[in-house]
Order: sequence, then structure tokens, then C-alpha cells
Amino acid sequence: MKEVLLVLTNRWADWEASFAVSVINSVPMYKVKTIAIDNLPKVSIGGIRAEIDYSIKEYQQLDNLAMIILPGGYSWKEDQHEEIANFVQKVSASHIPVAAICGATIFLGKWGFLNSVNHTGDDLDLFQKEKGYNGQDYYVSAQVVVDKGFITANETASVEFAYEIFKILKVDEAQEIEIWYDNFSNGTAR
Amino acid sequence: MKEVLLVLTNRWADWEASFAVSVINSVPMYKVKTIAIDNLPKVSIGGIRAEIDYSIKEYQQLDNLAMIILPGGYSWKEDQHEEIANFVQKVSASHIPVAAICGATIFLGKWGFLNSVNHTGDDLDLFQKEKGYNGQDYYVSAQVVVDKGFITANETASVEFAYEIFKILKVDEAQEIEIWYDNFSNGTAR
Repeated sequence: MKEVLLVLTNRWADWEASFAVSVINSVPMYKVKTIAIDNLPKVSIGGIRAEIDYSIKEYQQLDNLAMIILPGGYSWKEDQHEEIANFVQKVSASHIPVAAICGATIFLGKWGFLNSVNHTGDDLDLFQKEKGYNGQDYYVSAQVVVDKGFITANETASVEFAYEIFKILKVDEAQEIEIWYDNFSNGTAR
Repeated sequence: MKEVLLVLTNRWADWEASFAVSVINSVPMYKVKTIAIDNLPKVSIGGIRAEIDYSIKEYQQLDNLAMIILPGGYSWKEDQHEEIANFVQKVSASHIPVAAICGATIFLGKWGFLNSVNHTGDDLDLFQKEKGYNGQDYYVSAQVVVDKGFITANETASVEFAYEIFKILKVDEAQEIEIWYDNFSNGTAR
């Protein structure tokens, strides 16, 4: 059973990785664990105090790691999060996928992880405007982009984000993943 | 500042109330707090160990309560949750709205809260079939139903569920709530 790490920061966005982790943690191949720069609970935007399974310092061995997921949240714009950046670097260098949504895409952009690839994100777009970039190098107007081991998504694309993650992690048969996506995109009361 | 209580049970569904609580807890009028039958952390389907602010026993005074929200989760089918049912009864008798989604609608149905009103819910439908009900009395094929102080929703309707809650709690100007709903229903990268 491999681990999928949810990287939590203060004021993490409740909804952004919620579809992803609930399915991943329900299949036999994976277990979701929370990780942060320390072991103190991290409070979501919605007021949920989530306990932390691992500090980054104590997570040295990546052999059992299938993916890391970075939900958005207010702290990505406020702090540098250098320790998390170093961890992303290590994970990415080990060819383990990194999934980021909303504010976490800014963080990846700031640290240069997305410079050579095409990525999306409302906030990434804002970040580029602030920096005077025209965004043409790597900005794509799409809800989710998957490229070179990085999955990036807009804050309004939590279902699409989960869908792309499910295909990469192969959480189920392709057809079942399509049914899940159709239900959660369009509703079941049709 | 009034409180909105998120009622957590073991294996609560991460995504179902996530849109609702993140907006409610971000506006000045409300604060989201977690409540459960005891003070032990409650682990979500996705593996998040959420700490508990109040046990039901210690929450006797409802003057400062604006709403309770019951996310779905696996334990609603397994346990009776009598203590939560008594709390719902007390809240409802005080004319404070009760919002429930997915498995939590079964729980409300089991305890008779929805018998005289029209409600929705995939699981409520299943529950009715198991019990031999034809469902015509109170089942509606819709993603969300708001009726007589109860808001009920399907598991695939977390955005619609939040939208109905926002209108009742008046978290923002009507027009802003519509913009939020449009963005989260249709995406921002259009």
C-alpha cells in the first residue's frame, strides 16, 4: 500500500483536494496521510483543525510515496515555504507526481517548477501579472493541466483535479473513473 | 458573531460540506465550529483527522447558533446516532436551520425529521426502497431541496448545497452569491 501525502499549510482550502483524497483513501492501493512543516494541527479556511501525520523533516524515504497533493490556501501567497519547496524538488526529482491547485500553483510558479511547462491556475495568472509576465510562456486557459509530472488546477476545478489524479494513480478501471467524473460534474439527479 | 456547527462523525465525507464551511467561516458574521458526540478527533473518508471543538453534551445554549450542517459519511448507515438525533430535534424546535447531505439525509429520514416534507438524497431514496416505501410522499428528484428549516442534498451536489445555505445565512449580497455559484458550477476558465 503506497502513501499519498496531502501537504497542509495554515488556512488550507477545504474543498480543493477533498474529492481527490476521499476516493484515494478508499481504494486498497493507497493510504492518504497529512504532512506539514511541523506536527501542529493546520486549520482550514472552513475552520477544521486537521492533525498532521508527518513533519517534512521526518519524511526522508520516498520509496513508498505515490504522489503529493498541495491544496490551495491563503498562506501560499504570504510565506515562501522554502522547506516545502525543497520537498517538492526532491519528490519531483524522484519522478513522483506533484498535484497542486489554486494558491499552491502560485507557490510552484514562484519556485520555478512550472517555468518550462504549460500550466493553469487563476492565481498563477495573477502572479504572472504582478510580476509583469505576459503569461504566454506557460499559461493555459484551462481548468486543469497535466504536464511533466505536475498537475495544476484552478480553484473552481476540484472535481476535474481529482479526475486527472485518479487517472494517474489508476484508482479504478478507466470506465469507473469516467462514471465518477460524469456524476460529480453533472449531478446524479438528472 | 454567530456559530455554525459542523456535526462530525467517523468517516465523514470530506467534500460534502467543504464549499459551505470555507465561505461561512470567511465572512465576519459567522464562525464555524466542529461538534461531535465526544471530543475525540473524527477521521474523514479522505484520512483527515479533524479535532472537535464541542461535544454535544456541553453545547446546551443555542442562542448563538445560526445553523447546523451534517455532512454525509459512512457511519450514518451503521449507527443510530441517537444523541445527534436529540440534538437535531432541539435545534429544529428552536427554528434553527438544519442542513444535511448524502448519508446524513438517511439519518434524518430514519428519525422521522423528513416525513412530512419534500426532500432529496440518493441515499434517502435507497433507504426508502429498503424500507419498502415508494418514496412518493417526500422524495423529490432534485440535487437540493429546501423546505421547512431542512436543507437536504445529494452527494454530488456539494456546490448547490453550499449555494442554498449561503442564501439562508445571507453570507453576502444576493448578486455575489450568484457569481460564486456560477463560478463553482461552471468553472472560471471559460
